[in-house]
Amino acid sequence: SLIIFLMLLVSCSAVKRKQFAPCKNLVLFFHDIIYNGNNAGNATSAIVGAPEGGNLTKLASMFHFGNIVVFDDPITLDNNLHSKAVGRAQGFYIYDTKNTYTSWLGFTFVLNSTEHQGTITFAGADPIMQKTRDISVTGGTGDFFMHRGIATIMTDAFEGEVYFRLHVDIKFYECW
Amino acid sequence: SLIIFLMLLVSCSAVKRKQFAPCKNLVLFFHDIIYNGNNAGNATSAIVGAPEGGNLTKLASMFHFGNIVVFDDPITLDNNLHSKAVGRAQGFYIYDTKNTYTSWLGFTFVLNSTEHQGTITFAGADPIMQKTRDISVTGGTGDFFMHRGIATIMTDAFEGEVYFRLHVDIKFYECW
Amino acid sequence: SLIIFLMLLVSCSAVKRKQFAPCKNLVLFFHDIIYNGNNAGNATSAIVGAPEGGNLTKLASMFHFGNIVVFDDPITLDNNLHSKAVGRAQGFYIYDTKNTYTSWLGFTFVLNSTEHQGTITFAGADPIMQKTRDISVTGGTGDFFMHRGIATIMTDAFEGEVYFRLHVDIKFYECW
Repeated sequence: SLIIFLMLLVSCSAVKRKQFAPCKNLVLFFHDIIYNGNNAGNATSAIVGAPEGGNLTKLASMFHFGNIVVFDDPITLDNNLHSKAVGRAQGFYIYDTKNTYTSWLGFTFVLNSTEHQGTITFAGADPIMQKTRDISVTGGTGDFFMHRGIATIMTDAFEGEVYFRLHVDIKFYECW
Repeated sequence: SLIIFLMLLVSCSAVKRKQFAPCKNLVLFFHDIIYNGNNAGNATSAIVGAPEGGNLTKLASMFHFGNIVVFDDPITLDNNLHSKAVGRAQGFYIYDTKNTYTSWLGFTFVLNSTEHQGTITFAGADPIMQKTRDISVTGGTGDFFMHRGIATIMTDAFEGEVYFRLHVDIKFYECW
Repeated sequence: SLIIFLMLLVSCSAVKRKQFAPCKNLVLFFHDIIYNGNNAGNATSAIVGAPEGGNLTKLASMFHFGNIVVFDDPITLDNNLHSKAVGRAQGFYIYDTKNTYTSWLGFTFVLNSTEHQGTITFAGADPIMQKTRDISVTGGTGDFFMHRGIATIMTDAFEGEVYFRLHVDIKFYECW
């Protein structure tokens, strides 16, 4: 009986400790083409807020500090902008530092493919110049019901001030 | 003893599995009257960001893509705008698609009634044209200390581009 | 054997119940100097959205309703603006009420000191005129991996419409 007791104690405490290996992992790309006054057909995002002296077709000086950008970007399984989209990344980012490139992100992956149906919501600071940076996955719906986790973001491409592509490695640690 | 072991195993794993029936449920309405230049007295929200060519008293063309709206809307227990408010819905939404109506929501219910004291914070994508859509409840305070859940939103009324009313069915799955 | 069963039942249910005493506590200050057209060198934040009739160098009338402010503020361990910064508070706030001072906050503490490396993300309503107000800690990374909690905010200083300092008492209840 003592043995049973000990075994069960172990079993229970294993229950208590949350897992630090992801319970689910998802790697996706999304593609942002910012409106610059001449690309209305292709653009997937637009500047909608700017600091004093700024305008809405050109990112501001001082590392774009104060620009708010709204986006509806295609999500793909690989790094090809023209691959079939599996969903849309929707939300906004704000450039928030005057002496380097950083932004604050609030957005949602709306996934709608044979493999995944549901949403994943992200929030956090993005120190853009670092190779990898972690933001929080604060919630999910559908296939991602009540999920939480960490997303590691990498800039996979950056072309002038018109196009960038992010590699997003989503690790869920709470899966339900 | 084996029976005890199995019983306890079941009991422990029941501890592990989180509950999928809500531990708390709340149905509320909130009412948004957008400022259009002529309704300063009644308006509960205002356009504060717009894409190039837009303005702050009229929602933009292209499905309002790029408009940021700040709101402080009354929350009621039923669908009547004139019912006693039990709190305020405060935050913002951003119209974020060029070819249909979708928005991204970041807001908080600040409840202050005999029944509920505390806040509930929401974030997520709102594909407005769908009858029901789920967003994440990412946190709470007061009576909703550390709560998490899912809110199902329905457009309960929509009058031109001045008034809408949302039916919000909040299901908490983590209640503390 | 019955005794063992009961003991283990207690042990398991103790596992289930989450702790209501914080598993980690952090008290920090951050300092916001808003750009007013004449303090570009010192300013740590800027108005980037305003209601109709507003501008970007002066907070709007009607309790600043409709102003969006982006910030990159120094975080310190004490209430001295000139103390060594242990990180930056980055994000935005929106003034969202017409008849009193309230705001909606979305921001992240990016901590980078010998003591703490990682981010803490916050969201929620801030009824500024109340002495203390609670907002949600919706996620964390690094040292704050997957953390959740409640932050109690106090206005520690307020100087005209140029400088304020917030005292932030972060209580984590989910620590991993």
